[in-house]
Amino acid sequence: MFENPTGERERRGARTRAGGRAARLALRAAAPEPDRKPVWAGIEGGQYNPLSPSDLLSIHRAALELLGSVGIGQATPEVIEIATAKGCHLNAHGRLVFPSALVEDLLTKAAREYMIYSRDPAHADLNVGGGRVHYATSGEAVSVLDFGARRYRPSTLQDVYDTARVTDALPNIHQYGQMVVPTEIEDLFEHDINVVYAVLSGTTKPVEHTFNTVASLPAAMELYAMVAGSEKRFRDRPFVSFGGCPIVSPLRFAPENLDVLVATSRLGLVNDIAVAPQAGATAPAYLAGTLAQVVAETLACLSVVNMVNPGCPMSFAAWPFAVDLRSGAFSGGAAEVAVSMAAIAQIGRFYDLPTTVAASMTDAKMPDAQMGYEKGITAVVAGLAGANRVLESAGMMASLMGVSYESLVIDNDMLGMAQRVIRGIEVNEETLSVETIRAAVLGEGHFLGAADTLKSMETEFVYPQMADRAPAQVWAGEGAATMEERARAAAASLLSDHFPDAIGPELDARIRDRFPIRLPAERMRPIAK
Amino acid sequence: MFENPTGERERRGARTRAGGRAARLALRAAAPEPDRKPVWAGIEGGQYNPLSPSDLLSIHRAALELLGSVGIGQATPEVIEIATAKGCHLNAHGRLVFPSALVEDLLTKAAREYMIYSRDPAHADLNVGGGRVHYATSGEAVSVLDFGARRYRPSTLQDVYDTARVTDALPNIHQYGQMVVPTEIEDLFEHDINVVYAVLSGTTKPVEHTFNTVASLPAAMELYAMVAGSEKRFRDRPFVSFGGCPIVSPLRFAPENLDVLVATSRLGLVNDIAVAPQAGATAPAYLAGTLAQVVAETLACLSVVNMVNPGCPMSFAAWPFAVDLRSGAFSGGAAEVAVSMAAIAQIGRFYDLPTTVAASMTDAKMPDAQMGYEKGITAVVAGLAGANRVLESAGMMASLMGVSYESLVIDNDMLGMAQRVIRGIEVNEETLSVETIRAAVLGEGHFLGAADTLKSMETEFVYPQMADRAPAQVWAGEGAATMEERARAAAASLLSDHFPDAIGPELDARIRDRFPIRLPAERMRPIAK
Repeated sequence: MFENPTGERERRGARTRAGGRAARLALRAAAPEPDRKPVWAGIEGGQYNPLSPSDLLSIHRAALELLGSVGIGQATPEVIEIATAKGCHLNAHGRLVFPSALVEDLLTKAAREYMIYSRDPAHADLNVGGGRVHYATSGEAVSVLDFGARRYRPSTLQDVYDTARVTDALPNIHQYGQMVVPTEIEDLFEHDINVVYAVLSGTTKPVEHTFNTVASLPAAMELYAMVAGSEKRFRDRPFVSFGGCPIVSPLRFAPENLDVLVATSRLGLVNDIAVAPQAGATAPAYLAGTLAQVVAETLACLSVVNMVNPGCPMSFAAWPFAVDLRSGAFSGGAAEVAVSMAAIAQIGRFYDLPTTVAASMTDAKMPDAQMGYEKGITAVVAGLAGANRVLESAGMMASLMGVSYESLVIDNDMLGMAQRVIRGIEVNEETLSVETIRAAVLGEGHFLGAADTLKSMETEFVYPQMADRAPAQVWAGEGAATMEERARAAAASLLSDHFPDAIGPELDARIRDRFPIRLPAERMRPIAK
Repeated sequence: MFENPTGERERRGARTRAGGRAARLALRAAAPEPDRKPVWAGIEGGQYNPLSPSDLLSIHRAALELLGSVGIGQATPEVIEIATAKGCHLNAHGRLVFPSALVEDLLTKAAREYMIYSRDPAHADLNVGGGRVHYATSGEAVSVLDFGARRYRPSTLQDVYDTARVTDALPNIHQYGQMVVPTEIEDLFEHDINVVYAVLSGTTKPVEHTFNTVASLPAAMELYAMVAGSEKRFRDRPFVSFGGCPIVSPLRFAPENLDVLVATSRLGLVNDIAVAPQAGATAPAYLAGTLAQVVAETLACLSVVNMVNPGCPMSFAAWPFAVDLRSGAFSGGAAEVAVSMAAIAQIGRFYDLPTTVAASMTDAKMPDAQMGYEKGITAVVAGLAGANRVLESAGMMASLMGVSYESLVIDNDMLGMAQRVIRGIEVNEETLSVETIRAAVLGEGHFLGAADTLKSMETEFVYPQMADRAPAQVWAGEGAATMEERARAAAASLLSDHFPDAIGPELDARIRDRFPIRLPAERMRPIAK
């Protein structure tokens, strides 16, 4: 159904190339403009609104009703004391009830945005808020895909470091959040401090991780301060956000994680929680009901944070997940999760709160076509809805149970595509190109050599690194590889070669002297050949 | 980062299942409600608006300026006569110029919607217009993927029939448009009439195909009338829309296809054209410029149709494609195409015209992860933007050069997911579930056995046919297949078993008596075992 520039109908295979050879050579010779890029961290989203204004109000009112009557169970004595002093009370079931006026007042005090800094100007700082969209890894999976064997093996501390340094090399992923847990470390403190070390030595991008225990926080703060140069420097330009799940759905606190939330709030750190009910299991099957519940649960956390330390940075991190009701299995790649996460991004804009959501997830076990579309659809709708930070967005597989290095590399391309869609189309007199069109029509008959084409080719178009656009014959001649086979090779190359000097030998020695670091130094540099 | 309903942190693999066995058994026993489905043909899109209101006006004005000064080249004498009688004129370059007032007047006369009927009540009629979204195949590729050999072979008449009958079995694809051409048939008339026969005998869904020559139209009309029962019955409930490319970009008519457009308009048939400039090659590299040009080109076609037969059904079928400027290769799976097609859907809503766009395309050669995300992202954003008919949306591979039966099956699942996202979230007192939540919190502590869960599981959630959601261990135990391997088996099963009785033996004999039908009858039924 296409015509080439000479107007001849092409039916037998020639339609993949257009225009003259000279023009293409000129294009290839055109120097890129390094200060302008087709996509960037913080592209403006929010063009997609799954909910109507009255839907937003209905969900807000339902959430307030839940907080004001059903309340939240399992509050700690410390939180009960703080909250009752502000006007909350315990109801007949011993659940902490939040009056609507209090919640709405605390909403006015909440942080509108926050920063997570990069440790290297080569990577972007994250300015989280408004409609600005960033993509991050995260997930704390327990296993890693062995691509060749098609099986998942337990994840290790080495994988924490390796996923961090692969992510360090992938430009469309803006933050490294802890993707796996070191399943071989049983001691909670050693587990936590080694995760901090592995993450910070794997990348200079903004990072995120969780703690198993609040007891690890002082040592971690010491380690951050060593890396930043001083505690003041770290406080001034924090490069870490702190994950945690302070809620057990439906409508209960998780005491250990609530302790961490209170402690990090007192310190004014970035609270990067996740509130993750599952529609049909730990939340209603109706998606609207799950939204009402998860908004209530997240507003409870927000209320606690802003009672402890008004304006302390916190993500509105309502993560409405779902189960497949045929089996009870958690499903991360479901359409219902995609549209619910997008709704949360819109609700976050309604509240003017910085949001994180979970998207770009999949239930696939291999980096295959299912993985591609489940991740692609969920990633792009979350960004279009204006989610500020899209977590779980690269490398996560198997309903968040595992990680794939191949997927991490593929997702970098996919996220570049999603970001280019979110960026949209700039319409102005220059880009409308009326005079360019007139000149082409009355002149060459095509646009390949036009000045605007040369000028815009590196800024208007995103060029994938792994995706193949060659004609079928060329592809066949080059080995007929699938995307996942190309990604395997690319991931292997990064794993053997990309070792960012994120800490430096002198500091590394001091850290190893001070903490029980388990990552062997010889596994943190290229293997000598 | 998840908690199960009992509140225990799950870190070693148990988090994929939630709730009690008895509740799951009750869910499995719950009877589906056959009259309600989670997705359907004509779901309302339009929640995503890539362009601002002033962007829309700017593009409209730029298109009118192009039509009113540069005009369209290569108009036929017949069209020049019709158009100049209405106020157009030829400019100094011999190009047909359309005054803005005439175009805007014809826009008021254009059809706001049209119908394409199914021949069997088991499939939906397409009510094309408003924000109603449908997905269709199409593409007229010249090759078919041999999955095992990883190569493309030339497509044949058998493939026209086979792609039609596989599509007939896939519920999330609402129309079969001609996916491949019979490359073995050289004679233009025999080519056209055999395509009509193969399409109509392969499926009773609404269909679309193209003609090579306007000379085929009378015989095709005779064949449609035979299938419908009479010409009047066909005219009353047309089940075919007619593809064609009346424009050679930039800003020229394609005379042969323009003849078809005038002829089908006189007959009042559905004009289902495609206007397909490529940003950077046959249109400006700036996406806004490509939009201005393709809108001008499509409005020129719309003007011709409505000068010939005011109100004749026509798709606003502006298809802004792009090339990869590094190579000049056409790219169907590019982000720039995805966002441009979405913009066209919005522009069509601005004009209140029925739109078709091309999306769910890929540059991948195998049904792999690249295919998955390129198709997933382009398919969902086109629908969210409210495209009435999304063509090229299943089975197309390799920058539209080839078709894959495996992809066709996979895309059916993907389109189900996209449609569920587009459907959005119904918010009302019942779905907000406040009382259900209260009861669960104070009772069981979960929602698996709740009445609302049983009631909504078949209507709130779409369950994929091919996508795998099993835990990794179960998946490994069942052979650790990829999506594409499962799709190969499913496609083979449909190819060997699904032969819709779309025409019937008596009528088939009469058609074969009247026309030079090449498809052997023995290739149109299961092979005897």
